[in-house]
Amino acid sequence: MTPASPDPGAGGRLRVRLDLSYDGTSFHGWAAQPGLRTVQDDLETALGRVLRLRPAPRLTVAGRTDAGVHARGQVCHADLPQSAVDAAVGRSDATFENALVRRLAGVLPSDIRVYAAQLVSTAFDARFSAVQRRYAYRVADGPIRPDPLRRAQVYWHRRPLDLEAMNTAAQALIGEHDFAAYCRARSGATTIRRLRALSWDREPDGIARAGVVADAFCHNQVRAMVGALIAVGEGRAAPSWPGTVLESRVRDSAVGVAPAHGLVLEEVYYPPPEQWETRATSARSRRSLPST
Amino acid sequence: MTPASPDPGAGGRLRVRLDLSYDGTSFHGWAAQPGLRTVQDDLETALGRVLRLRPAPRLTVAGRTDAGVHARGQVCHADLPQSAVDAAVGRSDATFENALVRRLAGVLPSDIRVYAAQLVSTAFDARFSAVQRRYAYRVADGPIRPDPLRRAQVYWHRRPLDLEAMNTAAQALIGEHDFAAYCRARSGATTIRRLRALSWDREPDGIARAGVVADAFCHNQVRAMVGALIAVGEGRAAPSWPGTVLESRVRDSAVGVAPAHGLVLEEVYYPPPEQWETRATSARSRRSLPST
Repeated sequence: MTPASPDPGAGGRLRVRLDLSYDGTSFHGWAAQPGLRTVQDDLETALGRVLRLRPAPRLTVAGRTDAGVHARGQVCHADLPQSAVDAAVGRSDATFENALVRRLAGVLPSDIRVYAAQLVSTAFDARFSAVQRRYAYRVADGPIRPDPLRRAQVYWHRRPLDLEAMNTAAQALIGEHDFAAYCRARSGATTIRRLRALSWDREPDGIARAGVVADAFCHNQVRAMVGALIAVGEGRAAPSWPGTVLESRVRDSAVGVAPAHGLVLEEVYYPPPEQWETRATSARSRRSLPST
Repeated sequence: MTPASPDPGAGGRLRVRLDLSYDGTSFHGWAAQPGLRTVQDDLETALGRVLRLRPAPRLTVAGRTDAGVHARGQVCHADLPQSAVDAAVGRSDATFENALVRRLAGVLPSDIRVYAAQLVSTAFDARFSAVQRRYAYRVADGPIRPDPLRRAQVYWHRRPLDLEAMNTAAQALIGEHDFAAYCRARSGATTIRRLRALSWDREPDGIARAGVVADAFCHNQVRAMVGALIAVGEGRAAPSWPGTVLESRVRDSAVGVAPAHGLVLEEVYYPPPEQWETRATSARSRRSLPST
């Protein structure tokens, strides 16, 4: 059996990987919270319903997005009893994967879309096997509103931004650093991250877009870095300022956290199956407490 | 004075062209209707407010979109008193155009965006000077929902579509025809239109998209043609059927009108300024009663 193949694991359970998108507008983020609508809750409920499982399966996610943040390429996994997997394959679908995607589409709300399901070995961990996450942040700068058809995903900043100055400033953030100055503190969790890319360009319609890639991000990190760079772009801060803030390793109240709705988790990268387990082990040991 | 330059016209009025986008989801279409929220009403109210004009200026539009239909490249015009234009130019903006765009952005709701304003000669008529309109219709076909971030603009049709069969069928509709079979009747209005393009392709993410170009469209025409082609695409009708329906010149109850939210008015084309007046005269004479 290759590491990528399904593997019954302990107690005859199978692991399924789900790839999904969501419009974060009406959610209080990914993580389940009592009394609040969250993506995790809605998706776990839908899974429980289509697979007739009570309690519903629990999900582990690659990127725990905050309230209002969107995702185009989110990934999560769940462990399912073999019996539920067998029961789902019926006359309409030849495979469990097809059956699950079609049935979830029938019960999920229109702001969540599961576009792929795949049985994987238990070596795969949606959170800890991931090697990189890519986010995009979009800003319409200047007096003209963003396209109304994209307004839920674009932050309207009324002053024009100098992307060249922002790209110069971003250079100081790239690499492995302690990002404590850009993270909302979580006691015991490391704030050391490797930022692989952070650069701004313009989409064909003029929207300014930051592409941000790291092994992982701590809480609020992307929006805080974007907030600091926006201050540079509109001339309120010098291009050297975001680097100075980084070096200080303390939250600076002058760094504004950019609004959630401009942020989209675009993609999560995984290594080849034979590296899933080693990657997960090393990621778990480096991050002592939960963070994504 | 060239035809493109502003021209005080009768009573010292100036004509302004506005280019705008809107998310049609929450509107009962373009045209003002008592007691209902419409794009025309919201935009006329905003214009009256920023220019301090009572009653608010009346707008003439290129494409009167129905309830739920979106626009990315809608065009309209209004006539304004010279005094209002002079008063709008202030310290913040060197030109009336800039002042108007910036002020409208400040008062318009987030589902309407005016992205350009231009003073034009009274030879320009947003509706009758237009030589072509281009619409797009988008369908996610198959069991997987469309991207939640685009769901307000994509019709989810759960069965897969054969775009090749739909393109074959569309051939019979291209050219100058009496489109009575695809139009909601309006007594006295001609239903003869020249359809210049109607073809389907797939966007990079797999969404099926029809590009539709004509000199003008009669009421419901794009959505009825799309409805007929979808019947072909899913195998319910032969590729020859949409052409047969066209030749019959009567509405066929088997033609379903595709849902409004998949439709976007993408662009309106105008000839060079020296042809505005002739074009408007000929378009007015060909269409005896209002239609767009």
